[in-house]
Amino acid sequence: MEALKNAWYVAAWPEEIDEGNLVGRTILNEPILLYRKTDGTPVAIGNRCPHRFAPLHLGRHLGDTVRCGYHGLEFGEDGRCARNPHGNGTTPSHASVPTYPLVEKHSMLWIWMGSEPADESLIADEFAFVADPQRAHVKGSLNVKGNYMLLVDNLMDLSHGLYLHAGTLSNEQMQESFLPKAHVEDGVVYCNREQPGIAPPALWVPSLPSGTETVDYFSNLSWHQPSNVIHPVGCRIVGKPEGVDGGVGSRSAHMFTPETDTTTHYFYSNSRDYGVDDPEADKRIRGVLERVFGTEDAPMIEAQQQMIGDVDLNSLRPAVIPSDRPMVLVRRQLAKLIAAEKARTAEQQPATGRRDRDEVTPDAVPVG
Amino acid sequence: MEALKNAWYVAAWPEEIDEGNLVGRTILNEPILLYRKTDGTPVAIGNRCPHRFAPLHLGRHLGDTVRCGYHGLEFGEDGRCARNPHGNGTTPSHASVPTYPLVEKHSMLWIWMGSEPADESLIADEFAFVADPQRAHVKGSLNVKGNYMLLVDNLMDLSHGLYLHAGTLSNEQMQESFLPKAHVEDGVVYCNREQPGIAPPALWVPSLPSGTETVDYFSNLSWHQPSNVIHPVGCRIVGKPEGVDGGVGSRSAHMFTPETDTTTHYFYSNSRDYGVDDPEADKRIRGVLERVFGTEDAPMIEAQQQMIGDVDLNSLRPAVIPSDRPMVLVRRQLAKLIAAEKARTAEQQPATGRRDRDEVTPDAVPVG
Amino acid sequence: MEALKNAWYVAAWPEEIDEGNLVGRTILNEPILLYRKTDGTPVAIGNRCPHRFAPLHLGRHLGDTVRCGYHGLEFGEDGRCARNPHGNGTTPSHASVPTYPLVEKHSMLWIWMGSEPADESLIADEFAFVADPQRAHVKGSLNVKGNYMLLVDNLMDLSHGLYLHAGTLSNEQMQESFLPKAHVEDGVVYCNREQPGIAPPALWVPSLPSGTETVDYFSNLSWHQPSNVIHPVGCRIVGKPEGVDGGVGSRSAHMFTPETDTTTHYFYSNSRDYGVDDPEADKRIRGVLERVFGTEDAPMIEAQQQMIGDVDLNSLRPAVIPSDRPMVLVRRQLAKLIAAEKARTAEQQPATGRRDRDEVTPDAVPVG
Repeated sequence: MEALKNAWYVAAWPEEIDEGNLVGRTILNEPILLYRKTDGTPVAIGNRCPHRFAPLHLGRHLGDTVRCGYHGLEFGEDGRCARNPHGNGTTPSHASVPTYPLVEKHSMLWIWMGSEPADESLIADEFAFVADPQRAHVKGSLNVKGNYMLLVDNLMDLSHGLYLHAGTLSNEQMQESFLPKAHVEDGVVYCNREQPGIAPPALWVPSLPSGTETVDYFSNLSWHQPSNVIHPVGCRIVGKPEGVDGGVGSRSAHMFTPETDTTTHYFYSNSRDYGVDDPEADKRIRGVLERVFGTEDAPMIEAQQQMIGDVDLNSLRPAVIPSDRPMVLVRRQLAKLIAAEKARTAEQQPATGRRDRDEVTPDAVPVG
Repeated sequence: MEALKNAWYVAAWPEEIDEGNLVGRTILNEPILLYRKTDGTPVAIGNRCPHRFAPLHLGRHLGDTVRCGYHGLEFGEDGRCARNPHGNGTTPSHASVPTYPLVEKHSMLWIWMGSEPADESLIADEFAFVADPQRAHVKGSLNVKGNYMLLVDNLMDLSHGLYLHAGTLSNEQMQESFLPKAHVEDGVVYCNREQPGIAPPALWVPSLPSGTETVDYFSNLSWHQPSNVIHPVGCRIVGKPEGVDGGVGSRSAHMFTPETDTTTHYFYSNSRDYGVDDPEADKRIRGVLERVFGTEDAPMIEAQQQMIGDVDLNSLRPAVIPSDRPMVLVRRQLAKLIAAEKARTAEQQPATGRRDRDEVTPDAVPVG
Repeated sequence: MEALKNAWYVAAWPEEIDEGNLVGRTILNEPILLYRKTDGTPVAIGNRCPHRFAPLHLGRHLGDTVRCGYHGLEFGEDGRCARNPHGNGTTPSHASVPTYPLVEKHSMLWIWMGSEPADESLIADEFAFVADPQRAHVKGSLNVKGNYMLLVDNLMDLSHGLYLHAGTLSNEQMQESFLPKAHVEDGVVYCNREQPGIAPPALWVPSLPSGTETVDYFSNLSWHQPSNVIHPVGCRIVGKPEGVDGGVGSRSAHMFTPETDTTTHYFYSNSRDYGVDDPEADKRIRGVLERVFGTEDAPMIEAQQQMIGDVDLNSLRPAVIPSDRPMVLVRRQLAKLIAAEKARTAEQQPATGRRDRDEVTPDAVPVG
C-alpha cells in the first residue's frame, strides 16, 4: 500500500473502546487489537497471537491484559507474553505481538503505524475543536470500499457538490461563482472558497435569521498529513465576521484511515456552535451526513474503485483539470513525505517507535 | 480474452435503451455506456470518465450528451468532453472517452469493438427475421457465468437436448435418428438435422393439426461470426415444405456477447409465423425459454465453467466425439479469424474505426 | 497442497451415498464423484466428464453406471466411457475419468488419492470401534474453512479446552494438573493425559453414579496418518480400570479430509458403551458436539486461517511452547511421509493404483 507509515491515523472513536471490550481492526493491512486497561489507558497491539495466529479480539479482556481465546496466552501493552499457562509456567520471551503507540487526543484515538519514534506533536492542534465542550458534535464512521486517497480527493475537491449532492449541499448559483483557491503552507494544503452575497444553500436556511436573502458563504478545507481534513463551512451575514449577528456554520473533521489497499475506515465529526443543546438539530444533521456520505459519496467512490481496479489511479493517466488543483497538491505533499520515509528506511534500520516481536524458529524450542 | 475484436456484437435490445436512461455494460472486458440522443440515435462510448474514472452511467442524461455524476464533465457521441464546468470553462481536449460504432439493425443494437473501420455489411442479413413484423417475437436476455464459447458450444451441439432438456425439447425417438450434418460455407457453419416421419415432440403437439401422428422434423443451426446463431426448428407435415398445410415451426436467434472471460450476455429471440397475435402463445413460449435456458442450460454451463476454472477448455484436452463436429468447426472458424486479426494488428497500427482518447500526462496540466 | 497423496482419506459416511444418488465432492483439490452400484458397491471416479467437463454428479444414476447430464456419455467404475450415444455408437477409448480405490471399512468410506497401489492394510484397525454394534454412535460432519492441519492441531493440543470450551469440556482444576505426554510409536503419535483424583468435568456428571466426587480422568489422543485422530476420554472410578463399576467414557474418531488448501471436510463420530439405547443421550451428545465443533472450534479455526492467509503456517514462524509438542510431532511425522512420497515420485513413474485417462489431442479425432 502506498501510505505513510510514520504518521498518526485515527484508529477509533474513544467511545468504541469501552472498558472490557476488545476491538479487532485492520489498519494499513496490519491486524490491530484495541482495548483499554483498567485505568482507562487505551492500548493497541498486534491482533495476531504469535503462538497459532488466532485473532486476540476473540479472546478475553482481563483488565490490563488480554487472554487469547484459543490457548490462553496473555499479552499486555508491551506486547510481551505476560502469561503462558502451559508447560512449566515460564513466559516465552520470544512470543510477543507488535505494539503501536496509541494516544487519545482531541476526542480521537490516534495510532502510530511506523517504526520510527512516535511524535505526538505531529497530531495537528487544529483538530482540538473535535473535543470542544462549547460545541455540539455529531460523529460517525463508515467503512468504504475504496482506497483512502479517493476519499481525500472527494473532500478536497468540492466541485462535485453540485453533481453528487445536488439539492442537499450545493446549488447552481454557488457553482457559478465557485472558485476555490488552493495553496500549501507548512505542509498543510488549504483550499479556500469564499462566495460573497449569494443566496444561502437550502441546508443552512433553517438556521439563519428568517428572511435572510443573501449571505457570504465560505467553505475552507485544510488537509493535514497523512489523510485528515478539517472543513469549516457556513454562511456569514453579509459583511460580518463568522458567527456574528446570526451567521451560522459548522466545522467538521474527516479522518481517512487506510484499512487495506482498497478499503478505508472513514471517521467523521461535524460540530457547530449554534443550537448546541438541540437534539433535533443533532438528528437532522446526522440524517444529512448519513445520506450524503453513505448514499451519495460512498457509492460513487466504490464505483470509481471498481473502475480503477487494483492499479494505481495515476497509472491510468487521469485527465487533469483546474479544479483538481487542491487534490493534486495533496497527492504531491503526501508523495514527498512517503518518498522521504522510504529514503530514511533505506539508509538505516528502524528505531524504537514500534517493537516487532523477537524472531525465533520453531526448531529453537525443544519438542523432541 | 480470446475473442474477435473487429466484429459486431449485440450490445442490447433496442428497448433496453430508452430515451433518457443510461446503461453501463461491460463488453469484452471494456466498460461501455449506452444511451440515446434526443433524435433517438443510439450511442456507445466508454463508461469510464477520463477525469477521475467514475462510471458515467451513474450520471445524468442531458439529451445528446451525458453528464458525469461526480464532477459534471459532459461527453457526447464523439467521446470528446463537450463541457467542463470547472475553471475557465474551456473544454480539455485531452479528456475523452473511447467511442464505439453502434448500429440498430434487425431490431438489435450492434456494437463494434475493434479499432479497424466498422463494416456494417458484416451484420448478417439472415438476422432480418428478428425484425419481421409478420412474425411474433419473444425476446429475452440472461447473464450467464460462463465463457461465451461454452454457450455457442451448447447451441451448436443439440445432442444435449435429450439429456439436459428431456421431456421439453427432445424424446428418445428423436435421439435414435439424430444425425445432424455440419459444413462450412462462406465462413458460416451450418448444422442441419432432418428427421422425417417421426412422432412430433411434445412442445409442438399443441400447435399442430389435431391427430398429427408423424411429422418431418427439422432443426437447422447456422453460426455467424463472431458468436451468433440462427435456429429454425419445427415440424413439417410429412412430405410438404415448411409452413404449408399446418406445419409449424419457429426461428430463433441467439446472440452471445462476451462480458468478461467467464461471463456472457446472452440475448435470445424466438419468432414464429403461427399464432402471431396469440398472447397465450407468447406466454407459453416465454415460459419454456426461461425454463430451458435459465434453469437447464445456464446452470450446466456455469457448472462446466467452474470445473474448467480459469484455463482454456482446449488446454484440458477434451475427448472429442463425432457429435462435436459442428462446434469444432465453429471454434476453428473463429480461431482463424482471431489469428488473422492478430496478424493484421502486428503489422500495422490501428486504423480509425474507434478512437482512443488522446494521451496526456497529469504533469502536462499546470496545477502549481 | 501439502498433503499425502498415497493414503486413505474418509470420503463420506456410508449413509451419505444412498442407492441412487450421486455425490460430487472435492478432495485434495480433485473433483470426485461418489455413488453406489446396484449391488451396493461404492464407487469413486473423477467427477469431470472428459468430453466437455460437465460435473457428472449433475447427471443420472443408471445402476452401475452414471450418465452425464449434459450429452449423455456414460461412465462406470473403471472410469471408461461405457456408452457414447452419439455418432456410430462406438465407445471412445480415450474418453475416461480417473478412478479412485474406495473401500467401506469400519463404517466409513475411505478413498485412496495417490497413484501408487492402494494398500487396505494402511487403514488403521484402531478405527474398528466406529462400527462396533455394541456401542452407540453419534456421527456428524462439517465443512470448515481452514486447512486440514489446523483441525488436526486443534485436536492434538487439547490445552485449548479451558479457553475455547470453558464450561463445556474443561475446568480450572483440570487445567492445573494438565500435563499430557506425547510420543511416537510405529508412526502413530500418541498424546496421553491422565488426571487422577479430580472432580469430574460437568459433561460427565450426569452419567456417573450419583455422588461421585472424584474420578481418575483420562483423555488419550492418537493420530494416524494421514489426518485422522482417535480420542478415548472419560472418567474412571478412582483406582479402577476403564468402564468398570460405573466409570464412564466415550471414544471418538475425527477424520479430517482436505477439500482445498484452505477448506476441510471434517467427519466425526462419538461412540459410547453406556446408555447405548438411550435416544436422549444421543440427542444430548449431538447437541454438545455441534456446539463445540460448530460454534467454538470451527469459528476459531476459520479466524486463524484468515489471519494466516494463503501462506504456510510455518513460514510465519509460530512461537512454539511445550504444549505444542504433540502437534509438532504430528507435523514432523507427516512431513517425513510427504518427503518420502515426493522422493519416490521423482525416481519413478506412477504405478497402477489409480488410472488416469488416456491422453488424446482433439486433433486425433477426425471432425473434418
